[in-house]
Amino acid sequence: MQHYTNIKELDSLQETVKEAIELKKSELKYKFLGEGKTICLLFFNNSLRTRLSTQKAAQNLGLNTVVMNFGSEGWQLEFEDGIIMDQDKSEHVIEAAQVIAQYCDIVAIRAFASLTDKDKDSAEIVIESFKKYAGIPVVNMESATGHPMQALADAITMEEYKVSHKPKVVLSWAPHPKALPHAVANSFVEMMQLQDADFVITHPEGYELDPEITKNSKIEYNQNKAFENADFVYVKNWSNFKEYGKVVNKDTNWMVTAEKMKLTNNGKFMHCLPVRRNVIVADEVIDSENSIVIQQANNRTYSAQIVLKKILENL
Amino acid sequence: MQHYTNIKELDSLQETVKEAIELKKSELKYKFLGEGKTICLLFFNNSLRTRLSTQKAAQNLGLNTVVMNFGSEGWQLEFEDGIIMDQDKSEHVIEAAQVIAQYCDIVAIRAFASLTDKDKDSAEIVIESFKKYAGIPVVNMESATGHPMQALADAITMEEYKVSHKPKVVLSWAPHPKALPHAVANSFVEMMQLQDADFVITHPEGYELDPEITKNSKIEYNQNKAFENADFVYVKNWSNFKEYGKVVNKDTNWMVTAEKMKLTNNGKFMHCLPVRRNVIVADEVIDSENSIVIQQANNRTYSAQIVLKKILENL
Amino acid sequence: MQHYTNIKELDSLQETVKEAIELKKSELKYKFLGEGKTICLLFFNNSLRTRLSTQKAAQNLGLNTVVMNFGSEGWQLEFEDGIIMDQDKSEHVIEAAQVIAQYCDIVAIRAFASLTDKDKDSAEIVIESFKKYAGIPVVNMESATGHPMQALADAITMEEYKVSHKPKVVLSWAPHPKALPHAVANSFVEMMQLQDADFVITHPEGYELDPEITKNSKIEYNQNKAFENADFVYVKNWSNFKEYGKVVNKDTNWMVTAEKMKLTNNGKFMHCLPVRRNVIVADEVIDSENSIVIQQANNRTYSAQIVLKKILENL
Repeated sequence: MQHYTNIKELDSLQETVKEAIELKKSELKYKFLGEGKTICLLFFNNSLRTRLSTQKAAQNLGLNTVVMNFGSEGWQLEFEDGIIMDQDKSEHVIEAAQVIAQYCDIVAIRAFASLTDKDKDSAEIVIESFKKYAGIPVVNMESATGHPMQALADAITMEEYKVSHKPKVVLSWAPHPKALPHAVANSFVEMMQLQDADFVITHPEGYELDPEITKNSKIEYNQNKAFENADFVYVKNWSNFKEYGKVVNKDTNWMVTAEKMKLTNNGKFMHCLPVRRNVIVADEVIDSENSIVIQQANNRTYSAQIVLKKILENL
Repeated sequence: MQHYTNIKELDSLQETVKEAIELKKSELKYKFLGEGKTICLLFFNNSLRTRLSTQKAAQNLGLNTVVMNFGSEGWQLEFEDGIIMDQDKSEHVIEAAQVIAQYCDIVAIRAFASLTDKDKDSAEIVIESFKKYAGIPVVNMESATGHPMQALADAITMEEYKVSHKPKVVLSWAPHPKALPHAVANSFVEMMQLQDADFVITHPEGYELDPEITKNSKIEYNQNKAFENADFVYVKNWSNFKEYGKVVNKDTNWMVTAEKMKLTNNGKFMHCLPVRRNVIVADEVIDSENSIVIQQANNRTYSAQIVLKKILENL
Repeated sequence: MQHYTNIKELDSLQETVKEAIELKKSELKYKFLGEGKTICLLFFNNSLRTRLSTQKAAQNLGLNTVVMNFGSEGWQLEFEDGIIMDQDKSEHVIEAAQVIAQYCDIVAIRAFASLTDKDKDSAEIVIESFKKYAGIPVVNMESATGHPMQALADAITMEEYKVSHKPKVVLSWAPHPKALPHAVANSFVEMMQLQDADFVITHPEGYELDPEITKNSKIEYNQNKAFENADFVYVKNWSNFKEYGKVVNKDTNWMVTAEKMKLTNNGKFMHCLPVRRNVIVADEVIDSENSIVIQQANNRTYSAQIVLKKILENL
C-alpha cells in the first residue's frame, strides 16, 4: 500500500481487519519496524482520538513521531495554481509538501471540509495536493470527504462483535446544533459497501449524502423501520449535502433512545465520538451494555497501526 | 500508589522525599521501568516548569510521552451529568476520560481553578471525573485546589537545605495584580502539616485560605512578626477565598524585601515560580544567595519522577 | 562550540560545510551521541522547516526533544532589568532561562524581530538573555537579526552545486506585501563574507541592510546588472531598515522572472522559504530545474545536525 486516503485503497478490507485483530493481541511485535523512520502528523483541525491513537500506533511500531498543528504553528497554505500570492497565504502547498517530505517518511493529515465550498471539498484539495507533491506516503486522518481510519476501526469493532447470521447494519442520521462534515458517514458507507451485510442508511428526506458515494445503498426515511432487527446501529450527524453545509433540520425525534433500540435485534450502538449526549443519543443508550463506542475508540490504535505497518513494509 | 492528586496520597512524605533525593543522584537508574508504557499530559492551562519537568521525568523512566493542550487542540468538555449537550461543549468527560485511557497507561492533568465557581472548584470536577471514568492512574499537575507535585518538590528542596533544629517555616501572602488560584498555597499547607516544623501562615486579615485546608495551622496577620527567626519563607499570592477569586488587596507593603528577610534566621526564600519581580519579591531578595527558587524548579523533575516511579511499580 | 547564535561562531565555515556533507551520507552514524540528553526547542514564533528539521536532526543524534510554543503554552516574558512587574508579563527571563536549563542540556530558540523597536531587535534581547542566564548552550533558530542555521544550510547547498570557477553570488531583494525581518538576509551576508566569491547585494535605493552587517560588501542598485553572470541568485524580501520595519516599496519589477534569470550564468535560484509565488518569484523560475529551494530545505536537517553534534561533543 502506498497511500491510505480512502478505505478502497486496502487490498482487502476483510484481510486487513483480521490482521489488525492479530496485531492487537501483540501490539509490540513490530516495535522495530519503523526504526530510524519518521511520521509527521499534520493537524489543520482539532483532534483527540486521532491525535492520541496515531501517536500510540506509531510508537508501537518504533516510528519517530513529529506532531504539528499546522494552522497555529505553521504558515497559511495556498492551494491554487498560478495565483499571485499577495494576500494572506504565505506558502504554497507545492513547496510545503515537498519540504515536509524532506524531514519524514510518511505524512498523515487532518484537514476537515470547509462546508462552504462543495467543489473544493469534493476535490480533496489538501490530501490530493500532498499526494501530488510530497512524493511520500500520505495518510488520511480525516479529510473533507472521508475518514477511512475511523471506518477501518469500525470494521474491526464490528468483526469483534460479529453475529452468526448476515448482520443488519444501520447508519442513522441524528440531530446536532452545528454543521458537521460528511466524512465519517461517507467512509462508513464506503466500508459497508465492501461488507456482506444488510446495510440501510436512514435520515430525514433531503439529508441524502453524496449519491456518488451512497450509490445503490438502501435508504429508508423511516428511522423506526430502519432500526427493526438491526444488529449494529451507527449514529452520526451530518450537515445537509444539497444545501451544502447547512443545518436545515434539528428534529429531536431523530435522537437515538432506548425505545428505538428496542426495535433492534439487541443491536450494538456505535458512534465515532465526540458525541453530544441527549442530542445525538440518550444517556440510557450510550451508558448501556450495548454501547461499544469506547471499543471503537480503542480500535483507532489498531486501524492506524495496521495501516502504518503496511505502508512501512512497502517503503 | 494508584493516583497522585493530593500530597496525602503518599504513604509517607518523609520516605518519598528521601527516595527522590536518592533518585536525583542517579536519575537514569530506572530508565527501562516505563518501557512500552505511555503517559498523556493533558494541559487545560499554560505551563512551563510542569510541562518540561514532567516530560523530563517521564523520559528518565523510559516512558513514552504524549502532550496535549486540551483547550486548543481538542474539544470543549462537558462535566455535568444528564445535561442536553446542545450548547458549546462537544464531548462529555465520561467519553473523553475513557477514550484517553485507551491510549495511555497514566494520565496527568493540569486544570486550574475557575475562580468564579467556588463549588465546582472545591469539587475538583476535572480531576475527580478523570479518576471516576478513566480507570487508569491520574496525576495532578495543578488542579483547582491543589498542586501536590509542587509541594513535593518544595519538601525535597527544604530537606536539601535542612537546618539542625526544628525549622520555622512561613507561608507568606504577597500582592499580585491578577487573581491567582489557591492551589499552590493549599498544597504547601497540606505538606507542612505532615512535617515536624514550626509552621506559620501570614496574610492580610480577610485573606484566609479555605479553613478546611488550613485547619489548626497557625495564622499570624503581622508579616514582620511571622518572619522572625524563620528558616524558610515561602511566598505566594492567592486571590481572596471568602470573596471568591477577587483581588481585594494589592498592598505593596506585603512585598518581600531584604529588610524583612533580615528578621529571619538567615532564612531561605522560596517561590514556586513564575514570580513577578518587585511586586511579590524585590530583586535584592530573589537575586540573593538565600533564594532557592531555581533549586525548587529543579526538584520538579524529581518530584514527578518519584511519583511516576511509584505509580509504574504499582501498575 | 558553546553556542550557535551567529555563523561567525563556527571555527571554520568551510570545514563545517564539509563535515555536514559527510554527515548527510550517514545521518544515523552518531545516533547514540545525544543519549540521555535533552534539547528544548522554544518557539516564540511560527515555524515549519525549522520545527521539523531541528527535530529530525536531534532524533538523528539520539537526543530527546521537547518542543514548546512559548507564546501560547507558557507565560509572557519580561526582559527589562529592575522593572516592577505589575503589568502583563508574568515571568522574568532571569528565572525562565535558569529554570529551562534545569530540564535540558541545550536550548534552541526562535524569536523574531519586533520590527517596531530597532534598539531591542539589534540588542538581540531574547537570545542574549538566554545566553546570559541559562548557562547551557543556546542555539539560534532565527532571532531578531540573524538566522545562522539557514545560512549554514545555504552554504551546504551552494557547496553541493559549486561551479569550477570563483562563483558570482547575488543576494536580491524582492517585493512582499508584509513587513519581514532582516534575519535571513543578514546571516546570508555574514556567511558570504566568509566565502571566496564575487558577492553582490541588490535592492532598491534606500533598502540598505544594517551597514554594520553589510560592511564593505558590494551593493548594486540595478537588479539586472547584478544578475549578469551570476551563478547563484538568492532572493529574499526584507522590510526597510532605515524606516525601521516599514514597507516603503512593493515594486513588482523586482520580482524574479525567467527573463532576469537569463542574464545569469545558468544561475541557481535560491530562497529560504516560505516564498510567495508570483510576488517574490515567478512560477516559471521556482518550477525550473535551476531552482534548488527544496535542496536548501533538505539541508536544514544537516546544518542543525552538524551544529548540535559539535555542541554535544563539547558538553
